[in-house]
Amino acid sequence: MNKRRGTLIILSGPSGSGKGTVLKNFFENYGDKNVKLSVSATTREPREGEIDGVNYFFISKTSFEKMIDEDKFLEWASFCDNFYGTPLSFVDENLENGCDVILEIEVQGALKVMEKRNDAVSVFILPPSAAELEKRLIGRQTESMDVIEKRITQAKWEISNLEKYTYFVVNDTVEDAAKKFKAIIDAERLKTDKQKDFEF
Amino acid sequence: MNKRRGTLIILSGPSGSGKGTVLKNFFENYGDKNVKLSVSATTREPREGEIDGVNYFFISKTSFEKMIDEDKFLEWASFCDNFYGTPLSFVDENLENGCDVILEIEVQGALKVMEKRNDAVSVFILPPSAAELEKRLIGRQTESMDVIEKRITQAKWEISNLEKYTYFVVNDTVEDAAKKFKAIIDAERLKTDKQKDFEF
Repeated sequence: MNKRRGTLIILSGPSGSGKGTVLKNFFENYGDKNVKLSVSATTREPREGEIDGVNYFFISKTSFEKMIDEDKFLEWASFCDNFYGTPLSFVDENLENGCDVILEIEVQGALKVMEKRNDAVSVFILPPSAAELEKRLIGRQTESMDVIEKRITQAKWEISNLEKYTYFVVNDTVEDAAKKFKAIIDAERLKTDKQKDFEF
Repeated sequence: MNKRRGTLIILSGPSGSGKGTVLKNFFENYGDKNVKLSVSATTREPREGEIDGVNYFFISKTSFEKMIDEDKFLEWASFCDNFYGTPLSFVDENLENGCDVILEIEVQGALKVMEKRNDAVSVFILPPSAAELEKRLIGRQTESMDVIEKRITQAKWEISNLEKYTYFVVNDTVEDAAKKFKAIIDAERLKTDKQKDFEF
């Protein structure tokens, strides 16, 4: 019987930090049944290929608002007329089952979660340098310079919150960053207060 | 320039936990120039093959007492008419140079160090089970049952202090335990407050 409680791991980083790629590499190379990625709920329409319960829980605006009223979100926010939120039930059920739960979330949401959950561990993924960040944001070439500049300003604000995080990892190479993220998860599992039910 | 400050890592475990073997395996497989093993000072005579400055700093009783008076030990104790102590200078110089310093020390000494240094991280190595611990202690066959029983009582007291440690590692296999110890060291290096001098 696994009575160990899992750890809530907040993962943030500015747009262009490569946190999504790091997370993908982490799950490919080091994923195990004891670590889950939190699935967000959203009111936006599913895009092609997106699967309900995997990419998001796709729910109606009415359901979302009901969940807000019933305090069933760890955090929620609205962007472009759509709601996005982290359902508490997914997180807490997995933690109680001894699984670590990774919450990939932008900085503003992360700060809210840290306030609510002082048992959470937070990891910030940093691009190798400010110059490299700009290069990555420009390199995408999917957005206008105006949007890119907004992203850079946003990234600067996000990085100014770095010291509120437990750990940070510089994403020089994705393999190395994923390995470091793995070390953090392994070490957190070895914390004495995470192994309270251990009997000698 | 490396302005990063290292971490003081306290490593304890009862006699028979295999902490020495874990440490040896760790240094063989994962040792790097940024992690040092603290060298104790002692007034006892060097045994055959022991090298001054490697196994111990072999010093006279007068020198040892002078160092006590000058508060130059992180902790010290006497066993069987000999003094043993951890020279502060070795520890602090290495930490200031950005190296992690591992202090392999019995529980009583470890508790003293934890009180003095709340920046220290502590790791307890546990044998897989109480039965296995007894087996290992008896298996040595170098001591009488009387001595073994004293060791078991001592081990029980030591293990009762487990919750005062930051982390604990069950030494099921030495390779696995060394790998876990490595993850702890890697994760500690990624703590935000250990990378304060990082400039983005």
